[in-house]
Amino acid sequence: MQRFARYLPILEWAKTYNRDTAVSDGVAAVIVTIMLIPQSLAYALLAGLPAEMGLYASILPLVAYAIFGTSRALAVGPVAVVSLMTAAAIGNLGLSDPAQIVLAAVTLAFMSGAILLAMGMLKLGFLANFLSHPVIAGFITASGLLIAASQLKHIFGIEVHGHSLPQILGDIWAHLGDTNLFTLVIGVSALGFLFWVRKGLKPLLLAKGLGPRMADILAKAGPVGAVAVTILITWVYGLANAGVKIVGEVPMGLPPLSAPSLDPSLWSQLFLSALLISIIGFVESVSVAQTLAAKKRQRIDPDQELIGLGASNVAAAVSGGYPVTGGFARSVVNFDAGAETPAAGALTAIGIGLAALFLTPLLYFLPKATLAATIIVAVLSLVDFSILKKAWGYSKVDFAAVAVTIVLTLGFGVETGVSAGVILSIALHLYKTSRPHVAEVGLVPGTQHFRNILRHKVETLDHVVTLRVDESLYFANARFLEEYVLNRVAEDKGLRHVVLMFPAVNEVDMSALETLEELNRRLSDMGITLHLTEVKGPVMDRLQRSHFLDELTGEVFLCQFDAWQSLRNRVQPGAPEGAEHKGLVAE
Amino acid sequence: MQRFARYLPILEWAKTYNRDTAVSDGVAAVIVTIMLIPQSLAYALLAGLPAEMGLYASILPLVAYAIFGTSRALAVGPVAVVSLMTAAAIGNLGLSDPAQIVLAAVTLAFMSGAILLAMGMLKLGFLANFLSHPVIAGFITASGLLIAASQLKHIFGIEVHGHSLPQILGDIWAHLGDTNLFTLVIGVSALGFLFWVRKGLKPLLLAKGLGPRMADILAKAGPVGAVAVTILITWVYGLANAGVKIVGEVPMGLPPLSAPSLDPSLWSQLFLSALLISIIGFVESVSVAQTLAAKKRQRIDPDQELIGLGASNVAAAVSGGYPVTGGFARSVVNFDAGAETPAAGALTAIGIGLAALFLTPLLYFLPKATLAATIIVAVLSLVDFSILKKAWGYSKVDFAAVAVTIVLTLGFGVETGVSAGVILSIALHLYKTSRPHVAEVGLVPGTQHFRNILRHKVETLDHVVTLRVDESLYFANARFLEEYVLNRVAEDKGLRHVVLMFPAVNEVDMSALETLEELNRRLSDMGITLHLTEVKGPVMDRLQRSHFLDELTGEVFLCQFDAWQSLRNRVQPGAPEGAEHKGLVAE
Repeated sequence: MQRFARYLPILEWAKTYNRDTAVSDGVAAVIVTIMLIPQSLAYALLAGLPAEMGLYASILPLVAYAIFGTSRALAVGPVAVVSLMTAAAIGNLGLSDPAQIVLAAVTLAFMSGAILLAMGMLKLGFLANFLSHPVIAGFITASGLLIAASQLKHIFGIEVHGHSLPQILGDIWAHLGDTNLFTLVIGVSALGFLFWVRKGLKPLLLAKGLGPRMADILAKAGPVGAVAVTILITWVYGLANAGVKIVGEVPMGLPPLSAPSLDPSLWSQLFLSALLISIIGFVESVSVAQTLAAKKRQRIDPDQELIGLGASNVAAAVSGGYPVTGGFARSVVNFDAGAETPAAGALTAIGIGLAALFLTPLLYFLPKATLAATIIVAVLSLVDFSILKKAWGYSKVDFAAVAVTIVLTLGFGVETGVSAGVILSIALHLYKTSRPHVAEVGLVPGTQHFRNILRHKVETLDHVVTLRVDESLYFANARFLEEYVLNRVAEDKGLRHVVLMFPAVNEVDMSALETLEELNRRLSDMGITLHLTEVKGPVMDRLQRSHFLDELTGEVFLCQFDAWQSLRNRVQPGAPEGAEHKGLVAE
Repeated sequence: MQRFARYLPILEWAKTYNRDTAVSDGVAAVIVTIMLIPQSLAYALLAGLPAEMGLYASILPLVAYAIFGTSRALAVGPVAVVSLMTAAAIGNLGLSDPAQIVLAAVTLAFMSGAILLAMGMLKLGFLANFLSHPVIAGFITASGLLIAASQLKHIFGIEVHGHSLPQILGDIWAHLGDTNLFTLVIGVSALGFLFWVRKGLKPLLLAKGLGPRMADILAKAGPVGAVAVTILITWVYGLANAGVKIVGEVPMGLPPLSAPSLDPSLWSQLFLSALLISIIGFVESVSVAQTLAAKKRQRIDPDQELIGLGASNVAAAVSGGYPVTGGFARSVVNFDAGAETPAAGALTAIGIGLAALFLTPLLYFLPKATLAATIIVAVLSLVDFSILKKAWGYSKVDFAAVAVTIVLTLGFGVETGVSAGVILSIALHLYKTSRPHVAEVGLVPGTQHFRNILRHKVETLDHVVTLRVDESLYFANARFLEEYVLNRVAEDKGLRHVVLMFPAVNEVDMSALETLEELNRRLSDMGITLHLTEVKGPVMDRLQRSHFLDELTGEVFLCQFDAWQSLRNRVQPGAPEGAEHKGLVAE
């Protein structure tokens, strides 16, 4: 029973649920619902799906997260980046039948949910760490630009295809002559209004005496105003007949039951996309959840979050939705509006359910240009090129990862971009560790400390070279160390002892062990003794399980200063080690 | 001129070439030629190619290596593992026209040569290091078994296809009824004779008073005896008419000029195979060359070796050969027979050239079973399962890499096996470093040393926790550290200071920097100060290029003992740091 409860965080917070928390959650739910209605329609449009799928993805998935999720403020639902990735994944299939497209979206949500659940049960949350910060930052910025560009077609009222920036911009340029002026006026006005709401409304409300939290929340409700006004204008002036694209009939009622396709070829085509959507969605969601939890000294459990998001996506799949995750802006609004428990999400689901039941006829005349404007304004806040400057200043390797991710995402689409970013980060990391920093060190006079001879004034001995290895030794860098030592030894005929300092060696794998054995033999052939110093406990434990320590020509000293004292006077090659050495140590 | 000469090691040794070295090289060349004739025919058979291609691959490539290679004893030519990989690569193409198969082999040699040359010029020799020792050992053992199994068909005289052990054994079992008895007798006799030559001949020759070197070399010439005797028997008794498969007509004369195909689809199909052949061939060759060079205190230059092997493969491609590399057994014979310079290789090429000119008619009646027997005896010496036991004792991670490489190579062929081994090694390494060892440390009484509280009796302070981080911090493990610290802090309300000891942190990448910033902020929210100690020079240089040190709530201490003395009495939360701290340090 205890084991089972571990997967149900709801059991914990539901115990202390009371009237006060219910009121707080209710207020937050109302505000998030108002924000979510236009967003959910818009993101479905971005994903290339019927508008109602956005609503469906905002009902059951929220209930599932309320039961299985650990964050108290995370607002789950359709989000921009995952919608773009859904569009790319389904675009790859080259489908034209709308029913097939809906089925593919449902299947993608199911696969993504299954992957998240499996990762959660296997405690594989750490896999998300292989998306480095620079790669995520670059990917989000490029995705924001791609999304904004992809929505320009709705602002101009033209047809555009393609999933990369050059394709999209080229298509827009080619079809600019088809622009529908009414659409353009609606789109540009909505854009202008929404930008003003974002920048200008909040200061105005503050000046009028509203509290800062209320002003912030009202400003976030701007899209609802734009939606209402443009519906009215389009209806009153009959603009749909003048070529303004509208959302049209949205089915009224609660989500239908749906089931994923079980076609293995569809699964294999969608697998990589589902994996990327799962991981990107998880990373985005967890970082929001952690940020909000920290503000209230709460903790979230990343492995349980995988379960929560997995359950949400499975819920999306069985109720006609598409892949969902925790959204950044929406969660912040939820938190600021006072949400105290995941119940706020369940209450939001009721709000969206009511909208699906009663409001959909009102959405008939909603211009797609308005939805596109809300998307553009929302995603441009994701675009932040300052990461490029920051990375350039800190490390060229990190800069390369950001730059490649941005360029490939813009040039070849989201899936190529993020995959290349991850592979490049790993490759660059392996490259760096394959050429470890090795410092030749000497004694700082009057102390027991040893420092790099290039950075400090230190004492050295002619017949001893001491090399500090600043990296764990493993297959990719072991031969580099061997080459380094043999080259250092080759240039100096007076050498009798090589001391390797291992304070920063956290691991010696079997390849490195064999290389050390080889190095020991080769140095021995040259009449040079090999010693180790400051070997860490876990590394020493492991070396003791091999024959290396028996074969080692020299000794293992606990501390570099001991080695210095012991070797200082052992100038003779092949000096007997037993008795004489013990004498030296004692002196 | 100097730059150009760098790529021509021949210019160095040719200066001091004299009559003595020429005699030594000549003797070695005669012995290697005798060993190489049956081997080159047998390996061509193993690669699924006409026998003469083995001879062609043993002429020009040896001359090219003599000019561009740096090892003085390496004997280049067709080798078992690369021949098996060639068979797998060409098998993937599903060709049946013999001319097409020859063209594919020539193209593979050319691509492999081009890849090696490119890697040499770009100094990418370090890429070979990503093949860890356990993966190589597992791969070579499994390849040896696969090769031996694949040759059983010639011993039985039956038809067998397939590139994996289960396929091969299944096919043999299914066709066992087709066994040709004459073939089986020849094959089994040859096998028995060759095993006896290997194990029993040398002691016998030693007992007869021969020198150990001569005995060893004569024993290596055993295959020539088996070839001569079985040719004679097959010819005299007309066994070819009784179903014994023979080599048949081998064209007489020097190698023809040949050119690789320029078909892009063939190139893309062969690319991965060519890359694997290049890297495996390079690793095998360099390890032999290094071992032999070390015995004479010579060095080889791995990047120049890439050029040498690349030139050899291009030479194979233009003279009707197939991929070549430095062979282990053959190079050891060359070395033991007294080869002093790469000229020995050029002289061997002349020997093989003479064989191609005059000896090929004699090979007409050579039974394939004899060649198969020489291959089986040669490759079984590669099979060494002791690596499994050694790896198990040393590290379960290394054991997993060997075991997976062996199982996948046997089960799915050489290309899958070695690729999976490399990927698994990298993945396991990343997994290990993604969960770094973090030790909570305390002061060893009466010293300035700090040690793990779990392993040693040490002093600790109630309001300070000191954590030693035993790994570089990078994207894959930064969040792990953050979680670790926050969990440690959460369980202890009296904490005021967290000290991170960085003596083993060789790198802090941008993801880790952002995580440290985040950790600093979160600890600050809890009224806890974060300090760093023993930060290395290169890491400190980098941190100074960011804003982290300005934001850090605590200090960076050069040495952990300084931190201990300074923090010992700072029990108050938010204790003023300026004046009071300086006072504490001075006390």
